[in-house]
Order: sequence, then structure tokens, then C-alpha cells
Amino acid sequence: MEKSIFEKIADREIPGYIVWEDEEFMAFLDINPLARGHTLVIPKTNIGDYIFEIEKAQYLRLMTASRKVARLLKSKLECERVVMMIEGFEVPHVHIKLIPSQGIGTPSNKSLQLSEQELKAIQKQITSY
Amino acid sequence: MEKSIFEKIADREIPGYIVWEDEEFMAFLDINPLARGHTLVIPKTNIGDYIFEIEKAQYLRLMTASRKVARLLKSKLECERVVMMIEGFEVPHVHIKLIPSQGIGTPSNKSLQLSEQELKAIQKQITSY
Repeated sequence: MEKSIFEKIADREIPGYIVWEDEEFMAFLDINPLARGHTLVIPKTNIGDYIFEIEKAQYLRLMTASRKVARLLKSKLECERVVMMIEGFEVPHVHIKLIPSQGIGTPSNKSLQLSEQELKAIQKQITSY
Repeated sequence: MEKSIFEKIADREIPGYIVWEDEEFMAFLDINPLARGHTLVIPKTNIGDYIFEIEKAQYLRLMTASRKVARLLKSKLECERVVMMIEGFEVPHVHIKLIPSQGIGTPSNKSLQLSEQELKAIQKQITSY
């Protein structure tokens, strides 16, 4: 089976603005972000397409990873909170969207156009100590 | 402290279209749904306002409850999948939105106007055996 685009990012075959990872999961910036710091959390291997059909223990580990990343984003970026969305129609590989929000009505549903340089700067801001 | 509207529903002080509950959590229909079967999952007591700041074990139990409810909705309603959103600006009591979706681009961001009778029918459809 052909690798999903997310597996290629996880395997470093195509570049991604990675902000966090452990053995099982990875988080990287969405390149069509709804807000600055919009991040996707994925399992590194393609364990399924639909979040509520993956095995329960994997689901809970993914939720634990997402909590970690959400707290990281909140601590590093100026935002009121981080919202979570799981839709997953675009890419057939389970992924969780974490989007920094400035309050009710945000993020909008329009993508920001960010340059490679801007994305790198956000990545650096999130991953700096 | 005054009870949140969700605590009042959990305590049966105001009516809710309840579709699932256990000792700790409850799920009921959103009365301004973005799709038929749009459901909120809440902890019965107001343990906090922001999902990523509640205690980790509680967070994981809430995610387990949400998985159960999402699978219930998918099994009882005609939908392609159930999407999950956690924003939480409207009511200061942690809640998870589970919204039946018919595929990419759905649900819309406009509320449906459903009568009490229609909401009752959806509740019945979800809770019937």
C-alpha cells in the first residue's frame, strides 16, 4: 500500500515543520493553517482512517499525545486556548487538529497564507526552550 | 457558585435530550445542532472550563466516554462518520461536541432549527435497542 502523505512526513521522506514527537506519534504544523500554530497530531504509522474505529488503547495514547502538544502550543504561543477538531476527511490517516484560538468565533475557516520563513519561525517559537 | 447550565441538565433541574450517561459523564443533544444528532458530552460536575487543563486521568475518562458516544451515534444514525470538536467558549463547563457528518464540508456552521418533537425523535432513535 502506498504511504500516506503523513507517513512520508513521519519517515522524513518529505519535509514537515515538526514541533513534537515521541516513538509513536508526531506533531507538525499544518501548511494551510486556520491560525498561527495550527498543528496536526498523527500516529507515525497509518493505523486507520477513522478515529473512533482505531483500537481503544491507541486512541487513548493519541489523546494523551494531543494533550501534551496542546499544552505545549498554549505555553509557547499567544492564544486564549487551543481548540481540537477531528474531522479527517482530507487525508486517510488519523489526525487531530490543534488550533490556537483567540476566543469565540476564532479560528476562522479561511486558511492563512504563510511563507516557508513564517512557518519556520512558528516552529522555532514552539520548540525553543 | 451558581451551577452551569450543563450541571443543571446533569442534575435534571432543566430538561435535556439525554442519549447516554454513566456515573461521571452525560451526553445529550445540542438544541442548536449543526447536524441531526449533534451531541455534547460533559462531566456531570463542573471540573473546569478548559479541556487541556483538567486532570489527565479525568481527561482520558472523558475521551473514553466520548468514544463510546461517538460509536453509539454512528451505529444509530445515518452518517459517514462523527466529527469531534472541542472549543468550549460558549459555556464555562468542559464539553465535547460530537457531530454526525456526511463527508467533507459537513457539518455546515449554521444551526438547524429543530422542533421539540424532532429532537425527541432523534433522542429515541439513538437510545432505542
